[in-house]
Amino acid sequence: MPEGSPADAQAAVPDLSDVATLDLDRAARRGYPEAVYCPGKTAEQLAAIAVAVRERTDIVTLFTRAGPDHAAAVLDALPDAHHDPDSGLLAWPPVPPEPTGGLVVVVAAGTSDLRVAREAMLTARYLGRATELVVDVGVAGLHRVLARLDLLRRARVVVVAAGMDGALPSVVAGLVAAPVVAVPTSVGYGAAFGGIAALLAMLNACAPGVAVVNIDNGYGAGHLAAQIAAPPPDHR
Amino acid sequence: MPEGSPADAQAAVPDLSDVATLDLDRAARRGYPEAVYCPGKTAEQLAAIAVAVRERTDIVTLFTRAGPDHAAAVLDALPDAHHDPDSGLLAWPPVPPEPTGGLVVVVAAGTSDLRVAREAMLTARYLGRATELVVDVGVAGLHRVLARLDLLRRARVVVVAAGMDGALPSVVAGLVAAPVVAVPTSVGYGAAFGGIAALLAMLNACAPGVAVVNIDNGYGAGHLAAQIAAPPPDHR
Amino acid sequence: MPEGSPADAQAAVPDLSDVATLDLDRAARRGYPEAVYCPGKTAEQLAAIAVAVRERTDIVTLFTRAGPDHAAAVLDALPDAHHDPDSGLLAWPPVPPEPTGGLVVVVAAGTSDLRVAREAMLTARYLGRATELVVDVGVAGLHRVLARLDLLRRARVVVVAAGMDGALPSVVAGLVAAPVVAVPTSVGYGAAFGGIAALLAMLNACAPGVAVVNIDNGYGAGHLAAQIAAPPPDHR
Amino acid sequence: MPEGSPADAQAAVPDLSDVATLDLDRAARRGYPEAVYCPGKTAEQLAAIAVAVRERTDIVTLFTRAGPDHAAAVLDALPDAHHDPDSGLLAWPPVPPEPTGGLVVVVAAGTSDLRVAREAMLTARYLGRATELVVDVGVAGLHRVLARLDLLRRARVVVVAAGMDGALPSVVAGLVAAPVVAVPTSVGYGAAFGGIAALLAMLNACAPGVAVVNIDNGYGAGHLAAQIAAPPPDHR
Amino acid sequence: MPEGSPADAQAAVPDLSDVATLDLDRAARRGYPEAVYCPGKTAEQLAAIAVAVRERTDIVTLFTRAGPDHAAAVLDALPDAHHDPDSGLLAWPPVPPEPTGGLVVVVAAGTSDLRVAREAMLTARYLGRATELVVDVGVAGLHRVLARLDLLRRARVVVVAAGMDGALPSVVAGLVAAPVVAVPTSVGYGAAFGGIAALLAMLNACAPGVAVVNIDNGYGAGHLAAQIAAPPPDHR
Amino acid sequence: MPEGSPADAQAAVPDLSDVATLDLDRAARRGYPEAVYCPGKTAEQLAAIAVAVRERTDIVTLFTRAGPDHAAAVLDALPDAHHDPDSGLLAWPPVPPEPTGGLVVVVAAGTSDLRVAREAMLTARYLGRATELVVDVGVAGLHRVLARLDLLRRARVVVVAAGMDGALPSVVAGLVAAPVVAVPTSVGYGAAFGGIAALLAMLNACAPGVAVVNIDNGYGAGHLAAQIAAPPPDHR
Amino acid sequence: MPEGSPADAQAAVPDLSDVATLDLDRAARRGYPEAVYCPGKTAEQLAAIAVAVRERTDIVTLFTRAGPDHAAAVLDALPDAHHDPDSGLLAWPPVPPEPTGGLVVVVAAGTSDLRVAREAMLTARYLGRATELVVDVGVAGLHRVLARLDLLRRARVVVVAAGMDGALPSVVAGLVAAPVVAVPTSVGYGAAFGGIAALLAMLNACAPGVAVVNIDNGYGAGHLAAQIAAPPPDHR
Amino acid sequence: MPEGSPADAQAAVPDLSDVATLDLDRAARRGYPEAVYCPGKTAEQLAAIAVAVRERTDIVTLFTRAGPDHAAAVLDALPDAHHDPDSGLLAWPPVPPEPTGGLVVVVAAGTSDLRVAREAMLTARYLGRATELVVDVGVAGLHRVLARLDLLRRARVVVVAAGMDGALPSVVAGLVAAPVVAVPTSVGYGAAFGGIAALLAMLNACAPGVAVVNIDNGYGAGHLAAQIAAPPPDHR
Repeated sequence: MPEGSPADAQAAVPDLSDVATLDLDRAARRGYPEAVYCPGKTAEQLAAIAVAVRERTDIVTLFTRAGPDHAAAVLDALPDAHHDPDSGLLAWPPVPPEPTGGLVVVVAAGTSDLRVAREAMLTARYLGRATELVVDVGVAGLHRVLARLDLLRRARVVVVAAGMDGALPSVVAGLVAAPVVAVPTSVGYGAAFGGIAALLAMLNACAPGVAVVNIDNGYGAGHLAAQIAAPPPDHR
Repeated sequence: MPEGSPADAQAAVPDLSDVATLDLDRAARRGYPEAVYCPGKTAEQLAAIAVAVRERTDIVTLFTRAGPDHAAAVLDALPDAHHDPDSGLLAWPPVPPEPTGGLVVVVAAGTSDLRVAREAMLTARYLGRATELVVDVGVAGLHRVLARLDLLRRARVVVVAAGMDGALPSVVAGLVAAPVVAVPTSVGYGAAFGGIAALLAMLNACAPGVAVVNIDNGYGAGHLAAQIAAPPPDHR
Repeated sequence: MPEGSPADAQAAVPDLSDVATLDLDRAARRGYPEAVYCPGKTAEQLAAIAVAVRERTDIVTLFTRAGPDHAAAVLDALPDAHHDPDSGLLAWPPVPPEPTGGLVVVVAAGTSDLRVAREAMLTARYLGRATELVVDVGVAGLHRVLARLDLLRRARVVVVAAGMDGALPSVVAGLVAAPVVAVPTSVGYGAAFGGIAALLAMLNACAPGVAVVNIDNGYGAGHLAAQIAAPPPDHR
Repeated sequence: MPEGSPADAQAAVPDLSDVATLDLDRAARRGYPEAVYCPGKTAEQLAAIAVAVRERTDIVTLFTRAGPDHAAAVLDALPDAHHDPDSGLLAWPPVPPEPTGGLVVVVAAGTSDLRVAREAMLTARYLGRATELVVDVGVAGLHRVLARLDLLRRARVVVVAAGMDGALPSVVAGLVAAPVVAVPTSVGYGAAFGGIAALLAMLNACAPGVAVVNIDNGYGAGHLAAQIAAPPPDHR
Repeated sequence: MPEGSPADAQAAVPDLSDVATLDLDRAARRGYPEAVYCPGKTAEQLAAIAVAVRERTDIVTLFTRAGPDHAAAVLDALPDAHHDPDSGLLAWPPVPPEPTGGLVVVVAAGTSDLRVAREAMLTARYLGRATELVVDVGVAGLHRVLARLDLLRRARVVVVAAGMDGALPSVVAGLVAAPVVAVPTSVGYGAAFGGIAALLAMLNACAPGVAVVNIDNGYGAGHLAAQIAAPPPDHR
Repeated sequence: MPEGSPADAQAAVPDLSDVATLDLDRAARRGYPEAVYCPGKTAEQLAAIAVAVRERTDIVTLFTRAGPDHAAAVLDALPDAHHDPDSGLLAWPPVPPEPTGGLVVVVAAGTSDLRVAREAMLTARYLGRATELVVDVGVAGLHRVLARLDLLRRARVVVVAAGMDGALPSVVAGLVAAPVVAVPTSVGYGAAFGGIAALLAMLNACAPGVAVVNIDNGYGAGHLAAQIAAPPPDHR
Repeated sequence: MPEGSPADAQAAVPDLSDVATLDLDRAARRGYPEAVYCPGKTAEQLAAIAVAVRERTDIVTLFTRAGPDHAAAVLDALPDAHHDPDSGLLAWPPVPPEPTGGLVVVVAAGTSDLRVAREAMLTARYLGRATELVVDVGVAGLHRVLARLDLLRRARVVVVAAGMDGALPSVVAGLVAAPVVAVPTSVGYGAAFGGIAALLAMLNACAPGVAVVNIDNGYGAGHLAAQIAAPPPDHR
Repeated sequence: MPEGSPADAQAAVPDLSDVATLDLDRAARRGYPEAVYCPGKTAEQLAAIAVAVRERTDIVTLFTRAGPDHAAAVLDALPDAHHDPDSGLLAWPPVPPEPTGGLVVVVAAGTSDLRVAREAMLTARYLGRATELVVDVGVAGLHRVLARLDLLRRARVVVVAAGMDGALPSVVAGLVAAPVVAVPTSVGYGAAFGGIAALLAMLNACAPGVAVVNIDNGYGAGHLAAQIAAPPPDHR
């Protein structure tokens, strides 16, 4: 990587090897493709990556947490990619695979948690699972979650996104046999500390069977749920 | 306060004015007596205080968080005082006043929270309220708390002691009209951080109407509950 | 909730069931109506909610922490709603109910705490209580709070909003028989840590009878105060 | 629960309803039995619980984090219970069920993590899964974990217990298709902060597919792993 | 410093140059002598230091935070040293110098803060100031501190030791012209966090003129007070 | 304070009693005037305050941390006030009093700490002390601070503003007899945590005689220094 | 430093002695030149410094973390200075010295860490070392770092910049004999806490030989690496 | 690893493969041997490891942080091992190798830091470097460290162990050309937070060239210093 080489001036799109070492065989090795985390990457870097995956329609590439500029750079190279602005997700190719394995039910405790819940749901769907979404069933009105118990008990895994007190995963895990993937969200203020209160509550859930991921990490929750709900190995 | 004065040698019990300025007229000013917090006080200091309140049977004096040595020093001066070793509470005079005002229901999320819940219940009782205790109704098995809904709805105020994820006050507050006094307990380990996880969850309770006190502060919860459930002013 | 359904294109206002599960019978169940927390909700989502409550003039709906865009969306559907820009509160219907129960006195330690204190005062008023407001009586000049002692002692409950060292609730609780609802505010800088210093001071108040709520949570403080000062059950 | 009732004097074993509300139908509701967390419970309370489950040999009861006194109290009532002193686990009845579902591989990054890893392994085994244990394969010597890749890739789920830098789950998750349950341990000193460093590293694992549980929570990790590796629903 | 040299066997008292570099000319350079902080030092190391200062009766040497073993080692070499077991302070020579400069008033908010307050008072006295001690005048009963206002206003500097909510320094600083040295103490529990709550309250005191020192640092507070109340330079 | 009263519409400048309770007799009580902290106050509120103090030229009023809008509002009412934009300080009347008492030397560890150091210096000057300023003498080049030793030793009190490692106050306190007021600044990044690193270093200064104030609190440091360097009481 | 002196009006460039005390002989004393940290300095202050070093082409001056305005001010005085906008570094004179000593290999775990890695690499180069850069070899795909083992083992010191879980330095240190300088970056979100997670992981690296610097401190890492890889003393 | 196998009963010393995977070829791979961290390991596990390395006298094995029981178990198997009780270090074989490379100077800021400093010094010595120790030269008396400047400037690397304010590494790094390895120690109390204050100060050292290791990590500091001071590669 020579400093200040004249090649830099020839093209706006940088040589990919200077900015990233794509792990394209991850799909073969792990059974799941690599995702591209957009924050901290320039539009030029994302464009270089988008071009590199354009012909690889056999595997799904997800671009996560894309802001408007990120999305524009990706869509410039992949105009037909699926783009969900709420969650900042782009998927290529745009059509998710035919679902296999068990059902993934994604629950958003409140309306403000929808952004994270949608990222989880779309990730699971593009990794090959059937998904359902349940909204605004926080513990302040228990009857709301109890009314959805049938759907929750049909799930192979339940993803619960909740901010503030983060109490919903404990309640849900106490009601179902399936594992619960808990995503703390940064929804709240003051002593919510950007999701720390919810994160700690989930790590200390008094019901066992709660798997915690990072604050606002809808992608990670969806990926984990897809792995848990994967078909038995002989079907892979 | 002269240093090394010969008077020090004459008596094991120190001059009270050197160690404490009792606020005996607090009962008149605030309607509630002062309590004596035992940790950090020597047996000699507690003995001096116990002697000082012995004749004041018109007001209740509570000694809180008394360890065995603290309790022995108090009981030496006040052998008939009520002593609850589980919660470390001593009360003088030993018989609580006749209850007035509304009902205080105290809920312990788990068996390990009993110690704190009992301190709250006894405090409220000695400050003049009728009390009831409900045990082990954590959110991991919702049917347990739902089964006690009738009692909970009869309360003028509900005290909820919970550790770990601290989720129970949110759930209870969503079910009753009365205010909920939430006491985080230090029950738990790891990311419970000695009660911080429960404290944060309670401060961020998604149901309004939750009043939070310090971790393990059963005395404060009981005192606050007694004030909330106090009879109307014209009866005081 | 079908992805990308054509119905999305027909109306700017989304189907409410996709974004929220209103708990409209909370007033019946708890005696107090649900509030709508605006941050994190889009103008479209708020408009859908505002339309849904328009005909329910029998119960009060509060929209809290509304920024200018939130307020515009609500006022578009409810042009006659009361709007207090300082505290970001909107109320529908605009006229508070006739006061019942005891008096709620709200104290702001400093001018900068007014925003939070007003949210508490308005919430208590719209939930049916008489309220009074006292401003700028911090502990650096004790004579200021002592001058208001008569008013403070007439309260059934005192709400104290304070930032920085959060010392005022301790001082007030030591002067009155009523419970004190302490609201830490994010006023301050440096080691105030956005309200943590005040929050910790309030949780460790050396006077008992202090109920703490989340940092800047004027709504929660007002709601709790309204419950504490509620008329005896037979009047509800 | 009458205070100071004479019944208290008649028996050392307290009335169970005063100290716990067992959730014995949890096995029916969730498919997994309740566990009894020993810390904070007295020997008398544990004895009461042990007596209560003695005849329920159709479901497995686990006592977790039992110290010597806890264990003695349980073994007094259940002398044939299985007792693993390293991890503080007791199981009743003593023989684990015949394994069903997929393989659970439990990895301990270092020798000091064995205590937690064994709790996870035994929990998964008593909840009905086949298990394997791999020891001392931390990232400071990568060849050690690479040498066990075949076993790791046969797992339906991998549990990784690691303290200090908590780096092993990231590395393992990058090598296998199965989900990884990461258990931070309190092994370390100084800026390990009792497991916080490992906890944060695991929550920020750069490989997706990592489910985090509480620090030192081997029981929770084993329970979650058993749920993930459960046989398809029609076999339950 | 040769490893394992035979000289080690000859004397229990180590060569001082191997364990400490005494700053004996600090008194000349700064006007105040060095103090010896005992924790983490062995009895042998303290004995070596005590022997080294025995003949230096022209300057005061303070040994701080001495536990029983530390004190015994020092008293073995300096049997006439003054020893205050409550605060763990030893002073050599035992008689404090004749007071000069202004008055130092030391205030303990509660009885449990006495230990720290005494360390401050004795330090100021041995560094040459006149001192007075006021006990148990916390803000929960304001009349107590207001009753001592005359004494407080005679001080050149006031030291205030307080734990829990740490509110007293703010109140005192608002009442006097002299600077206030605030010492947070570790008195309290739960969210007192070993003195952090008091420390933060003091750093955010809403009255200016508050100088904060480390938690439980009575020595530092007394030293600082002695410097502030020092006589004008021409008298030194 | 009637809600929505017509008087609100009559004047842009609010009734002062609705927004602040000025403590104008503080100068008489404490010997030092009140300062007005600008953040969180509206231009209208500041204008009301500025008008109220306009005729009080016998005492100094300081407006601290004034941004451009704050400053404009104050200068509109007090066009001749002194304004130091770097530190955000305004002073009325503009000419500081004739200095009395001892010398206050203010030290800025680095150029970036100048903003805070100037606030301290100006505050001390307007409270009646002579001041000197020393810049950019951090511990990375010890010769710089050693070169200013003569000036430092002439001070009655030294104020040291430092960010990053906050090491300079320890070094200065070890070189002079006067007390050192240490102001941590928020200069730095990463693990400087907005001044926490410097704050902790200063609280743990290994040289005694260090008085710590809040992060970036130049005003408080200057106020404290003015009190320490005040002339003997008989001259006040 | 006279206040408001007329000299201020004569020139936009301030007198350097009022804003900085340059440590120009640091190169002689330490063997390495001083760097100028730009944040918190005004364009005028930077211009004054740039002018002051213009003629000193015998030593290298680095300006670090320069934003666009900072860079413009420096380039105005030093138009031929080398400017790397990605890392915010400017160097004068522009050509780095001829390399001596050992090789410095700089590793960026991900593309987003490049900014910090480049700052480290350029610093080491301008301090006289040969450097190589390796990009995007995080532990989620171990084969990527293993493929560069030959280069890593040729280094006298390896700098590793990593955010999120900060696991890469542990892995690299376990593979090479050279010391590893670990730079945590603020890359990540949620429980990454702006680099704290990576910082803690690196401080707890289970492989010895890891030297940690501040979050995002590429300059410090490059400086340290240059010192470690310096030629033997007799060549200096 | 069969559960409860009869082999367990045959020997007190467990099969090593069940408890540890020794990395004996680390010396070949990295040039430095593996150390055995004793805490969390049983005496039996340590005995098994000691037996395993007994015949490997060609490489040095260090046992770190050994308490009395750990040491007894190791010395039972290796009676001639060197044992330094102060630092808890044991070394086998007992004689350190002949020194090569540059000089390592280890500095202890105070007497209480000696324990950590000795661990660093002995580790560097057993890894093959010449070492010197300097004691009690904290920044409160700068003349002490300045008096040792000649020795410090002869070092290839300086290790500085300091607690409390952690200021010494900054000062030393500003005086020498060699890199400084800074070890924060847990010496201190209150806001020292077990070494966090010193750790943060060192990470924010205003002099570049400071490499930080974990709190109390004398072993890691000595290891890192030995690597930095290693002879040029052709001599290894």
